[in-house]
Amino acid sequence: MRIDIISVLPDLMRSPFETSILKRAMEKGLAEVHFHNVRDFATNKHRQIDDAPYGGGAGMVMMVEPLDLCISKLKSERHYDEIIYMTPDGETLNQRIANKLSTVENLIFLCGHYKGIDQRVRDLHITKEISIGDYVLTGGELAACVLADSIIRLLPGVLNDEQSALTDSFQDDLLSYPIYTRPDVYKGLEVPKVLLSGNFQAIEDWQHDEAIRITTERRPDLFEKK
Amino acid sequence: MRIDIISVLPDLMRSPFETSILKRAMEKGLAEVHFHNVRDFATNKHRQIDDAPYGGGAGMVMMVEPLDLCISKLKSERHYDEIIYMTPDGETLNQRIANKLSTVENLIFLCGHYKGIDQRVRDLHITKEISIGDYVLTGGELAACVLADSIIRLLPGVLNDEQSALTDSFQDDLLSYPIYTRPDVYKGLEVPKVLLSGNFQAIEDWQHDEAIRITTERRPDLFEKK
Repeated sequence: MRIDIISVLPDLMRSPFETSILKRAMEKGLAEVHFHNVRDFATNKHRQIDDAPYGGGAGMVMMVEPLDLCISKLKSERHYDEIIYMTPDGETLNQRIANKLSTVENLIFLCGHYKGIDQRVRDLHITKEISIGDYVLTGGELAACVLADSIIRLLPGVLNDEQSALTDSFQDDLLSYPIYTRPDVYKGLEVPKVLLSGNFQAIEDWQHDEAIRITTERRPDLFEKK
Repeated sequence: MRIDIISVLPDLMRSPFETSILKRAMEKGLAEVHFHNVRDFATNKHRQIDDAPYGGGAGMVMMVEPLDLCISKLKSERHYDEIIYMTPDGETLNQRIANKLSTVENLIFLCGHYKGIDQRVRDLHITKEISIGDYVLTGGELAACVLADSIIRLLPGVLNDEQSALTDSFQDDLLSYPIYTRPDVYKGLEVPKVLLSGNFQAIEDWQHDEAIRITTERRPDLFEKK
């Protein structure tokens, strides 16, 4: 998989991709991520990439031309399955969207910044708009990191233990049951006895019941989605 | 505001805090963020911080003792308003939670990693559990960056133009209207004429109508929440 990330602040995204599982995915050749600085596509002598909004109001708007030039160049080089704009008014990311995007070849992520991008960039190029949640961030950069992480970890061979992704929260619309490791008593707090019983059917039943209980308490909406 | 972030991979979070608005907030003394590596609180000779889950299953579990030692040390140094565990089964982050957290003094964010943390850490210390959305990430590190960004940008003096945060998506439960900047025609695509009219009442009406239209089309659930 190839992901091209377009941003005014590519440096903001360096460390997440240079660490841990994303780094390993790239070293193994399972994913490649390329950063593109919008400023490299500025056309006027001030290398301007943003301007005041028509109609007034606070905040600056990312101009259409530099973004159009950057995206057009990438599109001339290969076919992209989706060109995604990271924006709070996009479709809310969930595990199903991440699963689906993990099966494609080439993606562009466009990070908004300032007040957002000129609407005409959306009209010309964007095929999908994604929000990582109902809150506002300084820019789309962290959202792009989150989306990339949620997708790349699903690529075959990225996680050491493939099973681990399949038993994650949300893959079966249930939250995780409580987990414990050694020691079996810590400051008087004991691990539930069933987990030490060696009775695998009883353990599995307990884990399932706890997942149901926690989902019912915390996120009953996950059941309604079924 | 002070935020202490506990993680097995603090390096993953460096660049977001060394760039742009988060960097400026720290340089101005409006926010301070401290990273703590769980491994520094390992107690056995192998500096072990994770172990296999009781009851079997894939993935490793972060052990109770190193996390307890780290959090206890911080708690002995100052009062924390909330000790937050970043986890997919937590309360889903939204703008109201970010607004509320932006008014407190001291926060701890605990990043889960691997399969998660021993339940007894939650029982002993955690006062709030937050998820940034219904998807699974490699670890809680990006979630902690997202939460920090959503909060720190709201601190008075962080954004250049305070108004800018108040007109963001979600602050009034409406998505943003379309925005445009120069030029007024690009590849035949025109800026809506009303925005060039200089009639501020007409512009405001158009922006409000568009915000309603877009919210109705994309996120009717935002109206239901009212």
